[in-house]
Amino acid sequence: PFESKDARPWTGPSLSILLRDLRHIQNSKERSAKLFEWLIAPVAPKKFFSDIWEKTPALIRRHNSNYYKGFFSSEDFDRILREDHVNFGVNLDVTSYFDGEKETHTPTGRALPVVVWDFYKNGCSLRLMNPQAFSGTVWNILSILQESFGSMVGANIYLTPPGNQGFAPHYDDIEAFVIQLEGKKCWRVYDPRSNEEVLPGIPSRNFTQQEMGTPIMDTVLEAGDMLYFPRGFIHQANCLPEMYSLHITLSTYQRNTWGDLLHKLFPGALDLAIEDDVEFREGLPLDYLDYMGVQNSEREDDPRRESFNKKVYNLMRKLLKYAPIDAAVDQKAKDFIHDCLPPVLTKEELACTVYSAPARWRDGGPRNVVLQIRGSTRIRMLRSNIARLCGENGSILLYYTIENSRDYHKEEEKCIEIDPELADGVELLLCSYPQYIKVDSLPAGSLDDKISLAAALYEKGLLMTEYPLLPKRD
Amino acid sequence: PFESKDARPWTGPSLSILLRDLRHIQNSKERSAKLFEWLIAPVAPKKFFSDIWEKTPALIRRHNSNYYKGFFSSEDFDRILREDHVNFGVNLDVTSYFDGEKETHTPTGRALPVVVWDFYKNGCSLRLMNPQAFSGTVWNILSILQESFGSMVGANIYLTPPGNQGFAPHYDDIEAFVIQLEGKKCWRVYDPRSNEEVLPGIPSRNFTQQEMGTPIMDTVLEAGDMLYFPRGFIHQANCLPEMYSLHITLSTYQRNTWGDLLHKLFPGALDLAIEDDVEFREGLPLDYLDYMGVQNSEREDDPRRESFNKKVYNLMRKLLKYAPIDAAVDQKAKDFIHDCLPPVLTKEELACTVYSAPARWRDGGPRNVVLQIRGSTRIRMLRSNIARLCGENGSILLYYTIENSRDYHKEEEKCIEIDPELADGVELLLCSYPQYIKVDSLPAGSLDDKISLAAALYEKGLLMTEYPLLPKRD
Amino acid sequence: PFESKDARPWTGPSLSILLRDLRHIQNSKERSAKLFEWLIAPVAPKKFFSDIWEKTPALIRRHNSNYYKGFFSSEDFDRILREDHVNFGVNLDVTSYFDGEKETHTPTGRALPVVVWDFYKNGCSLRLMNPQAFSGTVWNILSILQESFGSMVGANIYLTPPGNQGFAPHYDDIEAFVIQLEGKKCWRVYDPRSNEEVLPGIPSRNFTQQEMGTPIMDTVLEAGDMLYFPRGFIHQANCLPEMYSLHITLSTYQRNTWGDLLHKLFPGALDLAIEDDVEFREGLPLDYLDYMGVQNSEREDDPRRESFNKKVYNLMRKLLKYAPIDAAVDQKAKDFIHDCLPPVLTKEELACTVYSAPARWRDGGPRNVVLQIRGSTRIRMLRSNIARLCGENGSILLYYTIENSRDYHKEEEKCIEIDPELADGVELLLCSYPQYIKVDSLPAGSLDDKISLAAALYEKGLLMTEYPLLPKRD
Amino acid sequence: PFESKDARPWTGPSLSILLRDLRHIQNSKERSAKLFEWLIAPVAPKKFFSDIWEKTPALIRRHNSNYYKGFFSSEDFDRILREDHVNFGVNLDVTSYFDGEKETHTPTGRALPVVVWDFYKNGCSLRLMNPQAFSGTVWNILSILQESFGSMVGANIYLTPPGNQGFAPHYDDIEAFVIQLEGKKCWRVYDPRSNEEVLPGIPSRNFTQQEMGTPIMDTVLEAGDMLYFPRGFIHQANCLPEMYSLHITLSTYQRNTWGDLLHKLFPGALDLAIEDDVEFREGLPLDYLDYMGVQNSEREDDPRRESFNKKVYNLMRKLLKYAPIDAAVDQKAKDFIHDCLPPVLTKEELACTVYSAPARWRDGGPRNVVLQIRGSTRIRMLRSNIARLCGENGSILLYYTIENSRDYHKEEEKCIEIDPELADGVELLLCSYPQYIKVDSLPAGSLDDKISLAAALYEKGLLMTEYPLLPKRD
Repeated sequence: PFESKDARPWTGPSLSILLRDLRHIQNSKERSAKLFEWLIAPVAPKKFFSDIWEKTPALIRRHNSNYYKGFFSSEDFDRILREDHVNFGVNLDVTSYFDGEKETHTPTGRALPVVVWDFYKNGCSLRLMNPQAFSGTVWNILSILQESFGSMVGANIYLTPPGNQGFAPHYDDIEAFVIQLEGKKCWRVYDPRSNEEVLPGIPSRNFTQQEMGTPIMDTVLEAGDMLYFPRGFIHQANCLPEMYSLHITLSTYQRNTWGDLLHKLFPGALDLAIEDDVEFREGLPLDYLDYMGVQNSEREDDPRRESFNKKVYNLMRKLLKYAPIDAAVDQKAKDFIHDCLPPVLTKEELACTVYSAPARWRDGGPRNVVLQIRGSTRIRMLRSNIARLCGENGSILLYYTIENSRDYHKEEEKCIEIDPELADGVELLLCSYPQYIKVDSLPAGSLDDKISLAAALYEKGLLMTEYPLLPKRD
Repeated sequence: PFESKDARPWTGPSLSILLRDLRHIQNSKERSAKLFEWLIAPVAPKKFFSDIWEKTPALIRRHNSNYYKGFFSSEDFDRILREDHVNFGVNLDVTSYFDGEKETHTPTGRALPVVVWDFYKNGCSLRLMNPQAFSGTVWNILSILQESFGSMVGANIYLTPPGNQGFAPHYDDIEAFVIQLEGKKCWRVYDPRSNEEVLPGIPSRNFTQQEMGTPIMDTVLEAGDMLYFPRGFIHQANCLPEMYSLHITLSTYQRNTWGDLLHKLFPGALDLAIEDDVEFREGLPLDYLDYMGVQNSEREDDPRRESFNKKVYNLMRKLLKYAPIDAAVDQKAKDFIHDCLPPVLTKEELACTVYSAPARWRDGGPRNVVLQIRGSTRIRMLRSNIARLCGENGSILLYYTIENSRDYHKEEEKCIEIDPELADGVELLLCSYPQYIKVDSLPAGSLDDKISLAAALYEKGLLMTEYPLLPKRD
Repeated sequence: PFESKDARPWTGPSLSILLRDLRHIQNSKERSAKLFEWLIAPVAPKKFFSDIWEKTPALIRRHNSNYYKGFFSSEDFDRILREDHVNFGVNLDVTSYFDGEKETHTPTGRALPVVVWDFYKNGCSLRLMNPQAFSGTVWNILSILQESFGSMVGANIYLTPPGNQGFAPHYDDIEAFVIQLEGKKCWRVYDPRSNEEVLPGIPSRNFTQQEMGTPIMDTVLEAGDMLYFPRGFIHQANCLPEMYSLHITLSTYQRNTWGDLLHKLFPGALDLAIEDDVEFREGLPLDYLDYMGVQNSEREDDPRRESFNKKVYNLMRKLLKYAPIDAAVDQKAKDFIHDCLPPVLTKEELACTVYSAPARWRDGGPRNVVLQIRGSTRIRMLRSNIARLCGENGSILLYYTIENSRDYHKEEEKCIEIDPELADGVELLLCSYPQYIKVDSLPAGSLDDKISLAAALYEKGLLMTEYPLLPKRD
Repeated sequence: PFESKDARPWTGPSLSILLRDLRHIQNSKERSAKLFEWLIAPVAPKKFFSDIWEKTPALIRRHNSNYYKGFFSSEDFDRILREDHVNFGVNLDVTSYFDGEKETHTPTGRALPVVVWDFYKNGCSLRLMNPQAFSGTVWNILSILQESFGSMVGANIYLTPPGNQGFAPHYDDIEAFVIQLEGKKCWRVYDPRSNEEVLPGIPSRNFTQQEMGTPIMDTVLEAGDMLYFPRGFIHQANCLPEMYSLHITLSTYQRNTWGDLLHKLFPGALDLAIEDDVEFREGLPLDYLDYMGVQNSEREDDPRRESFNKKVYNLMRKLLKYAPIDAAVDQKAKDFIHDCLPPVLTKEELACTVYSAPARWRDGGPRNVVLQIRGSTRIRMLRSNIARLCGENGSILLYYTIENSRDYHKEEEKCIEIDPELADGVELLLCSYPQYIKVDSLPAGSLDDKISLAAALYEKGLLMTEYPLLPKRD
């Protein structure tokens, strides 16, 4: 495991200043990179992704309890309970772990502070799920980070009273960034127990203390510190007797592996091959059941087996040339777009979108309804990852994130169908990001067509203009 | 039809003053009655329910365009589009009616002002469904009114451009109160077409102009006027060429008839009778298929038919004594509780509920968590209709409205199970409303039991204390 | 309980002679009555149905082990196992009952004699379900009897080795006729344990020996004897140490009570009343939730409760005049027709049906295809219960038994739609049974229409002609 | 296309003599080969499978109208209609084809001769589906042939009146053997219309006459002739004005291609690879959505695309070594076993199976129940394809055909679980076929274990003894 050694405090910009600065970065990818850099500083992202990511746990110690200030506080937790409709079971879990036994105490209904704090005082751990639905800052941070990962970034918040542990040892199926916000917590991390459990695709059951070996990391995380560990690394954490703990765990890369891509790739590849190459449509040998199958697997000397296997290998090899890799990536991309949080727009961005369009009801009727999109208007997508063009059953669909909910998948996936003649125009817009391009430079037929494409995407909230649009006088 | 004749303007308190005054009425039923009185003034509620309700349309003309001011305005409509997530199809419909043909133009996705106003400018009518989810005032008014009706009170808002009509003639399955908020609209109302269509249980299809007779009412509704008509009365409305219209229609008494109650009553009654009275469990006559059934219905002279019918009538008569009327009412009550909007609490009410409990996170831990409910604390339910005790399969369940959503049925129905030994305590609380009673006067075992019952209901947000609770020092 | 006292042997006609004689009885109802008379002789059916049926167990002792000879024998059992596809679990159960514990040993797959007999030799009881699917005689007897009962007649066969008992004490939900075919079995019958268990609608769980009182009957049934008991009477039976037992239990009147009819009657009655009488469509009182429902059930002095209840009783009484009794009977009749076994036709009947129509393929083509149904042809339905005319959603459907399967409900219910103009013709045919009527006396339009109606029913196998039809020369 | 040129009549053994002779062939594969040889004589099977099968239509003309005598006749058709329960729609279709339009006239319910022959006389074609359920000979022939093909062999029978055609031109997804039984029929066969329609996986829609080119075969098939064509070859057939036609079409190789095998192979292969090789579990590149997917497919010069594709190809190649080919074959085998007709056993075979076991009920009890399987008893499976050993989720299951229905998939698939310690014994039995082996030579623990394995398979009807078993005296 990696551990940052520096004993001096690490100071960086405060989160509020950082977020303010990020607003001036035009490219959402770049913005995301800067935020991630801050998140793991002083480790360099390049180093992180080459030496640590998916490989080994990393402890970044900062001796600076204010480093993550403003991210999320126990006061935020309290306020959310009072002001929002937090539901037990759906948004908040109550658990305890004593003598090697994890228990869940979550009741039903709305989680009101007086009830929640009573559990806490009685030694229960609280887990706030989906904090991005309640905290604008968490939402903003996650929605920025998802641009870097090409995979959903989620979060859970854990508040544990002094002397307690909320969960049994286990490993997860996601890359975890544990960000200590307040208090301290003692963490023990263990190697995956076998090769099969390296980078696993499903989370583990709860383990007993006997099932793990020696921890490869045993440390106390303090406010301002961060601990990363890849999926498969077993971990457990408990509070010291005298100090509570508040941390947020960011998670990403769930089901985002080569294997997941291949699962999307194969059925399509095989269908293409069958359609195109008659060899796949030829009948199996009349007698193959006589020498193939598990009951015949010991007939190693039967030359028909070898020839059958060769034929299969040969066809599998042929399949390579039918692999519709881009189409499989589109299926992953479409899932990603649906998983995404909707973007948090900056004031500057907002001013140039449909959300700030001047149309208003005034004096008995709507005014400023017609917008001045012209050939010379310069436009760009609102974010690098705000939308994705996918081919599906002969249609071209533009999937987008802007109408997603802050609650995971509470809205169905959203898309609009794109006229094939306009697909090049959309593609140009997607690829040009973050550059602005002029409406009349879109490859989309007549000027009217270009304007109407731009207007459609603008009205869906997918693109911004370089300057706020002026209304036509009406 | 009833028409108020007075040609002088009718002035009443403004809505904002009325709502302020209502806050000081302790009893939610009384509060509701006052609000309804204002809604239909100067017609007296007593007269309304004896002469008009479910019988005939009523036009209340006030010559006072400000009467309903503050209820909902076209500016509210505009603001909601900008600030809330209004979704086409779900919350907003776009329709037109030309040359006897109704058309729906509703697209999908979020309804942004620039798109909505464009439809409007092109002559389309807008219908905002479920405005209570977006407007606090509408929510407040409906949630107050539902206490009077014992039946869900819903609303739709209609905004129609000059010279247009949005809907074809039809009748509804609800009692309708059309409240003209801005502009004017020409209304024509027609008698039900037949006895079967008096107080119908399902809404009609769209009618052509030829299918109705002469309107029994043909009038121009102006801002400040109200038009009521019972279910079954056909109606249509269109804007005058020079003036737009904004109105809200309040609706109630959907599926709230004696027949609906009987549908809930019969299966249970029959099961009870079968269980208790062996006559219901006796076999049918061996030969009844020979003389009963439609193919034998002309054997009027067969005495066995008469005797068979007599036996059936006799059993039906016997059934009367098994009718579990209260249980059937409970089924209706349970549905009503689920249909209800959650109450809008006044500041004064709030101060005495769990929502204002002083528990807070401060200085590294929760403070003021333990509440001082004592035997002498005086409590009452928060609203007359906030909860309902129902027996179900041997359990006693308390269904409640407080965790309902402002969107219809977006939350499942909520209840808590009540220990049979505490049922009398809950019943006393429900019946004593609006009086406060002391915790130690609850018929519920020991003082600890009483306090814990009170605490459970308090923590669910179902009851209020006479004075804000003070925390125990912790 | 009733017990026949006569110590002398009772001899009647043998089953084979009886069945032969029954063939000459034209009326299927009469045929059925004769067979049932023989089944319970020397008890007279009139006495049986007035004093015993649904009231008390009856033991008919005959001192004549050959009385039921030919019904079903252990050799038949053996032959069926060899020649038919009897499936464990579906058609055959293997059980044992030792020390108050019932066990099921049924394996899966086809029940071959060598396996079945091995179970038997090891002390297991065998239950052959649905023997009518394997034995022509059982099928014939049941299909004749169902004409008497207007309710499905089913059967199970039990073969128990010496000294064993296959089932725990229990009661059933059917009227049971236990017919001892071979060997002997000791039976104990107990009164229903409470009024609620008199004529119950569902079968009981297994009882322990302690749960019943003293048997009201404790007797050894010998071959040729019969034991009847109504639903609700608990019973158990075991073999004597030295003698095996083979019996068949005939069952009928499952879910065939007044209560079952009323369950079909009420929803329709209420719908009719709601449609016709506006009083059912009127709204409930505004405040009924305040005084009705279980939480208000103790407000006995509230006059509104009394008036509410009166209103409900009044509506329930009104409902009587809307009771669509014939339509409810039709629903029962339709279920019965689906439950029925297909009829076993006698040679004489067959000769006059479509099944003996002379159409044959001969010399390269079909011959004798066109049938000579003329106006003067005399026809009748094949059986009293072979078909039933029911009104359904405005259509007139003729449900029939002839294409049912010998396995219960293996075929869906079958019907043909009848042109309303021909319904009177079908009705006349159904009512005239067992008389033949001339085709041209059918009330069905032109002679061609009459002939085509007759031909349609003839081709479906529902009617027979008085004499075999002659083909037209072709 | 291939056409046999010989103008002299071809005579072979009659079907009845052939089937008698086949009984003496011990090996079911050999038996099947002989029957197939007769079916296509004088073409040699070797030639057929090398030059014709799946490649080109073949016409075998024999000038011998008696060649297929005994297979199925129009008299059989007539008898089946009278004696069996043939159901319209399920077993029998009625169609016509006039002026390029195919019509279906099939009514519902049982198909009685008088109705069926009336359709026929009016010019309709009849198709008897699943004739193996009604004709013992067809069942026998198909069940023998399925041993050769390792794929279900099905059949339809077509009876067409003079001058008519029943079906529109189309192609099928099966290999078709058209066997002319009586009369004549004019056939036209056309090449597949494109490469994609060579050996297609799904049947075509109906074509119009304009959609095909020139027929590659246009001939009159006479009784005794056979016409074969592979899937994908379009065909149509009509009767000459003066002569009817009866033919049976045998079909096989539906969904039995390499592609079908690969569809079973891939998910398993990928799961194995993911489990075993961490490279499949590694995360996708952080930025892959930026250069992969259809919207990026034109970035041909981006080296990241090439490297991504290489990685995918590399993983696909790696997959080869995880391909669980035998397990995939087992899935196909299991489907085949379920598709199979149950075998028709010869008298000689029957005598040595459980179906002839001497256990009988006699003199009040079962006799000869215990069978004398000893260590020295010699046994073998009843047929080469009667059962198949498959591994599934860690269990070893023996799927078998013997309890299949003659109606396609009317019974669920049947199997018994095999104790892993006995799997070698079962495997030996399957592989030794057609040799007999001694029970004590089974590799299965103690002699008792061996006997009990043999008894279990014997009792399921899966194996036969060399000589009929003698019962133990009991």
